[in-house]
Formats: sequence, C-alpha cells, structure tokens
Amino acid sequence: MNKKMVFYMLGRIILLEGVLLVLPATCSLIYREESFWAFLITIGIALICGGTLTLINRTKNNTIFAKEGFVIVALAWISLSAIGALPFVLGNEIPSFTDAFFETVSGFTTTGASIIPDVEACSKGMLFWRSFTHWVGGMGVLVLFMAIFPTESGRTIHIMRAEMPGPIIGKLVPKIKSTAKILYIIYIALTLTEIALLLFGGMSFYQSVIYSMGTAGTGGFVIDANGLADYTAYQQWVITIFMLIFGVNFNIYYLILMRKIRSAFKSEELWSYILIVAVAVAIITGNIYSIYGNLSDSLRNSAFQVASIISTTGYASADFNLWPNTSKAVLLLLMFIGACAGSTAGGFKVSRVVIVFKSIKAKLREMLHTRSVSSISFEGKTLDNGTISHVLSYLAIYCFCIAIIFIVISLEPFSLETNISAVVACFNNIGPGLDKVGPMSNFSAYSDFSKYVLSFAMLLGRLEIYPLILLFSPSVWKSRSVK
Amino acid sequence: MNKKMVFYMLGRIILLEGVLLVLPATCSLIYREESFWAFLITIGIALICGGTLTLINRTKNNTIFAKEGFVIVALAWISLSAIGALPFVLGNEIPSFTDAFFETVSGFTTTGASIIPDVEACSKGMLFWRSFTHWVGGMGVLVLFMAIFPTESGRTIHIMRAEMPGPIIGKLVPKIKSTAKILYIIYIALTLTEIALLLFGGMSFYQSVIYSMGTAGTGGFVIDANGLADYTAYQQWVITIFMLIFGVNFNIYYLILMRKIRSAFKSEELWSYILIVAVAVAIITGNIYSIYGNLSDSLRNSAFQVASIISTTGYASADFNLWPNTSKAVLLLLMFIGACAGSTAGGFKVSRVVIVFKSIKAKLREMLHTRSVSSISFEGKTLDNGTISHVLSYLAIYCFCIAIIFIVISLEPFSLETNISAVVACFNNIGPGLDKVGPMSNFSAYSDFSKYVLSFAMLLGRLEIYPLILLFSPSVWKSRSVK
Repeated sequence: MNKKMVFYMLGRIILLEGVLLVLPATCSLIYREESFWAFLITIGIALICGGTLTLINRTKNNTIFAKEGFVIVALAWISLSAIGALPFVLGNEIPSFTDAFFETVSGFTTTGASIIPDVEACSKGMLFWRSFTHWVGGMGVLVLFMAIFPTESGRTIHIMRAEMPGPIIGKLVPKIKSTAKILYIIYIALTLTEIALLLFGGMSFYQSVIYSMGTAGTGGFVIDANGLADYTAYQQWVITIFMLIFGVNFNIYYLILMRKIRSAFKSEELWSYILIVAVAVAIITGNIYSIYGNLSDSLRNSAFQVASIISTTGYASADFNLWPNTSKAVLLLLMFIGACAGSTAGGFKVSRVVIVFKSIKAKLREMLHTRSVSSISFEGKTLDNGTISHVLSYLAIYCFCIAIIFIVISLEPFSLETNISAVVACFNNIGPGLDKVGPMSNFSAYSDFSKYVLSFAMLLGRLEIYPLILLFSPSVWKSRSVK
Repeated sequence: MNKKMVFYMLGRIILLEGVLLVLPATCSLIYREESFWAFLITIGIALICGGTLTLINRTKNNTIFAKEGFVIVALAWISLSAIGALPFVLGNEIPSFTDAFFETVSGFTTTGASIIPDVEACSKGMLFWRSFTHWVGGMGVLVLFMAIFPTESGRTIHIMRAEMPGPIIGKLVPKIKSTAKILYIIYIALTLTEIALLLFGGMSFYQSVIYSMGTAGTGGFVIDANGLADYTAYQQWVITIFMLIFGVNFNIYYLILMRKIRSAFKSEELWSYILIVAVAVAIITGNIYSIYGNLSDSLRNSAFQVASIISTTGYASADFNLWPNTSKAVLLLLMFIGACAGSTAGGFKVSRVVIVFKSIKAKLREMLHTRSVSSISFEGKTLDNGTISHVLSYLAIYCFCIAIIFIVISLEPFSLETNISAVVACFNNIGPGLDKVGPMSNFSAYSDFSKYVLSFAMLLGRLEIYPLILLFSPSVWKSRSVK
C-alpha cells in the first residue's frame, strides 16, 4: 500500500473542496448573509488541512493500484463530508455536527435525505452549498479532480473505477483525463439546459439553479416546505424529464455527440430503463386515478414520482405516502432498481438487473440441458463468467448490507415500514422513504447513532460497497509486497 | 420429454395419496365423525384418477432425465394438493375450494399458513389430515414414494434432486431407494421420540401426534386458538428443541447413526445454524426482557420463536406481533434464512447463506489482488465455480420471485408490513407473518386471487423455484430431440 500517495491525493482533493466552497461563499456574499463567515473559515480549514497533507506526503512513487484507488475514494468521500459539514455547524444553521455530517453525506452521495425540519428558515448560501454537493457528488468529486488537474499517475483509472457506478466501466476515450473532461462537459451542458428551461417556465434564477443541481446529481434536496408540489405543471414536467435524462448512462450522450446515434439507441440498458419507467408509470397512473380524478394530473404525478424514485433523486410532487398500496409497492421496488450505470443515479442499476435477469434465464436453460453452457450477451457483447459472477456477487453483498443495516436501524422505535424504507432510501441514495420518513417528513427523529449508520449506508450505496469495506480490511493497510 | 412416463409416475403418486388418506379416515372413524365419508369419497376419486393415469400411460421407455424429474415433481405437488383439498370441501369444513386448496398447499409445503378462522370447531379427522400433510410434505412425497416402491428407473435421482431442498444433494448410499428408506426411518424415529416426550409431559395422545407431525415437517398448523401459548414450559421446550432438530441436515443424523460422530460435528452448516440461533435468541431475550420481567420466560419465548421461525415451522408461544421492533426485525431476517439444507425446513437455507458469505469474502480478496483467484471451500471440499454460480443465481431468482409476488399481492388493501410478511412467510414456508397475518391471525382476509398467488408462492418456495418455472416453459414440453 502506497500510503504517501494516498494521503497526498487526499490532500489535493481537500484543497479542491476549499476551492469549491468559494461558490457558496459568493452566494452568501451576494445575499449579504452572515453564513459567509462560516464558509470563509471552512475554506481556511480546508486549505490548511489539504495543504499540510499534500506537503507532508510528497513522494516520487506515484503508483496507484486497485487497493490505493479504493482507499483514496473511500477516505476522500468521508473527509469531504466531514469538512463540508463545518459551514452548517459554524453558521449555527445545523448546530449538531452529527446532523450536519448526515446532511453533507446525504448531499455528496446525492441521497437528499434531510434532517432539517424547516428548510425555509435556512440561509440561501447554505441551501446553495447543500444542493451544490449534489451536483459535485453526482458525477464524482474525483472525476472532477481528474478533469481539472494534470494526471500525476498513469493509473488513475483505478480511482475512476472505484468512484463510477455500474458493473462495467468503459473509458470513452483512451485518456482518463479526457474522459473525465468530456463527462463534465456533457454534465454542465445538460444542467445549463435545465436551468434555462426552468427560467423560461417562470422560476426564479436561484430556484432554477438549486433544482437543476439537485436534478443533475439525482440528489433531491428541496428548498420549499412542500417539496415540488406547489410548482406549475410545466416546471414539474421539465424536472420529470431531466430526472430521467440524468438517469441515463452518459456514454449514450457521448455516442450521440459523436453522431453514433444508431449505436446509442441500440443500448439494451436504455430500452430496459424506458420499459421499466413506462410500466411503472402506467400502473401508478391507473392506481391513483381515483385520487386525482383526471388523466393529466394522475399521469403527471405518477411520472414525476416514478422518475424521481428510479433516478434516485427523491423530489416529490405529491405525498406518495398517502397513495394506495399498489403504488407504494411499485415505488418501493423501483427504489431497489435505480437508474442506469454510468449515470449520476444510485441503486442497483438497470444494467445489473438486466444481467441478473439474463443469467437467471441462462440458468433455467442449463437446468434442462445439463451439459450445455449458454452464454449471456449484453449490449451486443458476450459477457465473460467473471463479469456475471461479479454482478451476482454484488447482488449478494447488496442484500447482505441492507439486511445488516436494517437490523441495526431496528433498534429505533419506529415501524417496520419506516425503518426498512429509511435503509433502502439511504442505501440507494434516494432520500425520502415511507411512513415517518416519507416525502413530507425528514430523518430528524433518528438517534445520533442511527444517523451515523445511515450516513455510512449512503456512502456504501454511492461508492458501491467495495471501497468502504476494503477501507476497514487490515490487509489493505499492509505495505505492498512484491508481486 | 417422456410424457408417458411423467403421467404414469403421476398416476402412481396419486394412488399413493389414496392410500395415505386411509389414516385420517381411520382417525375420523375412531372419533365417529361424519368427516369419514368425505375421506372415503376422496380415496375413491384418488384411486380412480391415479389408476386411470397409470393404466393409460404404461410404457416401456422408463427413462427420466432432469426435465422429467422437474415436471413430475411440479405436477405431483399440484395434483396432490388439489385432491388433498377435497375432504375439506366434501366435509363442508372449508366450503370454498380456493380456501381448501390454499390450506392443503400450505400443509404439504409445510408452510402452516391457515385460512380457518376457528380451528377448534373443526373435526379431529380433518385436523389430523391437515397436520399429516405437513409430515408427508416435510420429507417429501416423492421421497416416500421411492422409499416404498421398487424403482422402475435407474434415474430417479432426478426426481429426488427436484424435490429435496438445498444447494448440494448428496446420496447417503449409492442406491436411491436405500437413501430414501434411511431418511424416512430417521424421520419416523425422531417423530416418535417427540410424541413420547410430549406424552410424558402430560399432553394427550391426539395432541402429541398432531404437534409432533407439525414439528417434524416444520409445518406449523395448530389445533388451539391460542397456538402453543397455553402449553406448559416443559412442552414448549420439547417442541423448541425438536423444531431445531428437524431443521438440521438429515445427513448429520445418518453420520451419527454410522458412528461417524466426529465428521458429523465438523459440519460448517451445523455450526453456522447453531451460531445464528444463539445470536438471535440472545438479542431477542434481551429485547423482550422488559415484557416478561424474568429471564426464564424471556428465554423460553425467545428460543421458541427463534426456533419456530428459523426452522420455518411457524408455531407461536406468544404473539410476537406485539414484540418490540428489534425482535420483529430479527425474526423477519430469520424468515429469509431458514434452516439447513437436507432438512424438512424451507427458506434460503443456511448452507446457501454460508456459501454466499464466503463468495463475498473471496470477491473482496479478488478486488485487492486483481490477478489472484481465490477458491472457496465448504464442508471441507473446494467448491467448483458451477456450484457457486448456482447458489448466486438461486439468490437472484429468489429475490426476483419475492419481488414479483409482492407486487401482485400489493393489489390487496393491507399494510406494506402485512403484504411483505405474507409473501415472505408463504414463500419461505413459515406460516404466520406480521401485522394482519401475524401469529394470532390468519390469511382468510385475502382475496381468492391472492390465495392462489400465495399458494403458488408456497409451492415455489418448497420446490426451490426451478421445477414450477420449468413446468410453464414451452421448451420442456417438446419431444426429446436426439442429444
């Protein structure tokens, strides 16, 4: 394990956070809010910590293997959240550090689960920072880092692999730095388009920016007590469509940019995603028709909630906690699925669902013809056994983590529905769950201990489990032996 | 597909059911109940149907491959349940065929979920038949068939494989018929021991037989409105211990019989099972201590419920629906795990949990050292990739089935807790769930449609999914092509 390099990189990333904090500080300054000072102090702390780590750990050995990649990503996300929580505490808007940490983890992991009882009382600078963490966390802090800074190691692919979600990580172009840049350019372009469309629909600039950052990162923090229920149908539809857009694998947009439209639309994952959304919207629209009494409202609310849950954003245009059981059951299942790999969304990912489904079909075929081995193809390529076993193992560890966290959270005196949905909503980076943690409630009722456990769950979900677990494995911290 | 042989075997099995029905008929006769006639008519129907099928389908080609094995088992379980439901309908004790079918499937699959609102009003003959189906279904109807009748095909291992639960099916001795016989001898001996111990504890002969058959098959049908809450501590402890005993892999008992005590107690599955039970009992005892106020009651109720749920029996000595959340969460997780493979219990099986857990560990090791492939050993043997991928695929199809059935059952207007636990309790062959289907309630509130869906879930769980799914696959029904 190349510890020097790990901590050197960590220092650089914390420095980057210091720079990112300039944005909310500016926002506070514009609105002449006292929260400005909280940001300024935090920037100072970030620069000192980051600078010290960088200076102490200068090293000529800049090799990064899988091990180092996992550890850098895991430590980076924890440190970024801890430092990112400081403005809330220093500005006295979230006095408890536990709460502030929960809120910041929830921000960076694009979960959007909140412990703030009254968001409308918060300063604009803080709310901007909260939603900005969604935007940065969505595409990845380390991906941003690699897009900006010259790569000091040829092996940064290991970092990217550890941070990007999905079963198969493809580089768009041979150079990591270029891949990271292209991803961020697409990301910024889409975000700006959404801001423009919302402005056009009569939203204020501040609101448009906040809600677009939340949509882009598939985060879900809101700045209105009623969520998005009071916005116009046009605004809700724009957000619905963009939630779905940000749930699509960014490779598709790259292919479209490269004018490879045909191969973009051949994606099995894309079509499976569209199919799942269509079926879910149809079921829920039918199921809630009696509540809204007309097709247009039922369809809009159904589409909004389906898009919000499958993209793991977590915005709400209605209190779906009050919807009939069938709708709640469909939403609960969508929470597990999540959107496409290579998007900003959380969850198990559609591509994995498709691969699991295909491997089940192959297994059934094998059971009938004991000697035949059937191959599985995905996105036009035959999957090797390694990838399939990787996906199935991920399912196993995914179930296992959810079960363990659920048991720990069950120490809380809430209903089974509350606790299960809280775990599922945090682990899959959605935000709101059902019952006591429903879309019109928040997570403040949980104990400090449970808040840390749920924060851990959010990080596990965002980083797809392995980096965080490996961080706590003693063998990772041993010095690298000769291979 | 050798259809003649499939239907010939089916006929023989239905004939066997006709013979088995003589027992409850005798019981009715002893207690001079009218239900005797219902059994007599059903015996007649079974003999006619079974006899006709056997005569029509005589064939010299008695080959049975995996395909035929799956189909015979799936069809046999459906037919046995349909015919086994007739006495309830004919005797007018469960007038609706849907309800009677649900009850009989629940019996044979050793689920123990009931739709009878007042069991104490039923005739003794019917209650005997209900619990007898547990006993026969526990070890397997087809295993019984093979233990009794001369094997007409050398390939009956395919039938046994399709009916016996667990990831690895081992023959105890080279001949299937002998293996089946040994299993049934151990089974009968253990059942008789429990009857004797319960008689010794002051239970009536009838009660001892009923509750022992329910324990042996890990079924769970009761004949008292309060379940086992009103029985003595001694009786409850005997049942607790026997529920755990019947959850152990019967290979262990065979090894003990062969005086291979050391290798019996080297079983990893056994120790994992004991460990899970011990941890669950400890957590729940602590959690419910404040309710019972003393250690002996808390421990007894905790041990009883843990044994009942992990062995998928489903008896209740207390209404655990009223227990605190932590206990309910632990019980809910135990519902998924189930007991050991090769036992009469349902669920995912401890051996699979262990294999999944080990494959997760191996995967974590692989992530650190990309080029090393780590092997997984279980019960002293290195598992090949086929077995591991089989277990992981089973987890996938298991999750998938539960998700689909849950969505369908969510059409019912009950709480999420009720619906989820109903699906989990039926699929894992436990019986009672939580909330509206808790241990002191029953499944009568569900619609006819849902009762059929849940019956299907019970069969899926008992036969470990594949036989029933393959039954509906068109390719299975094609004539066998030359290999």
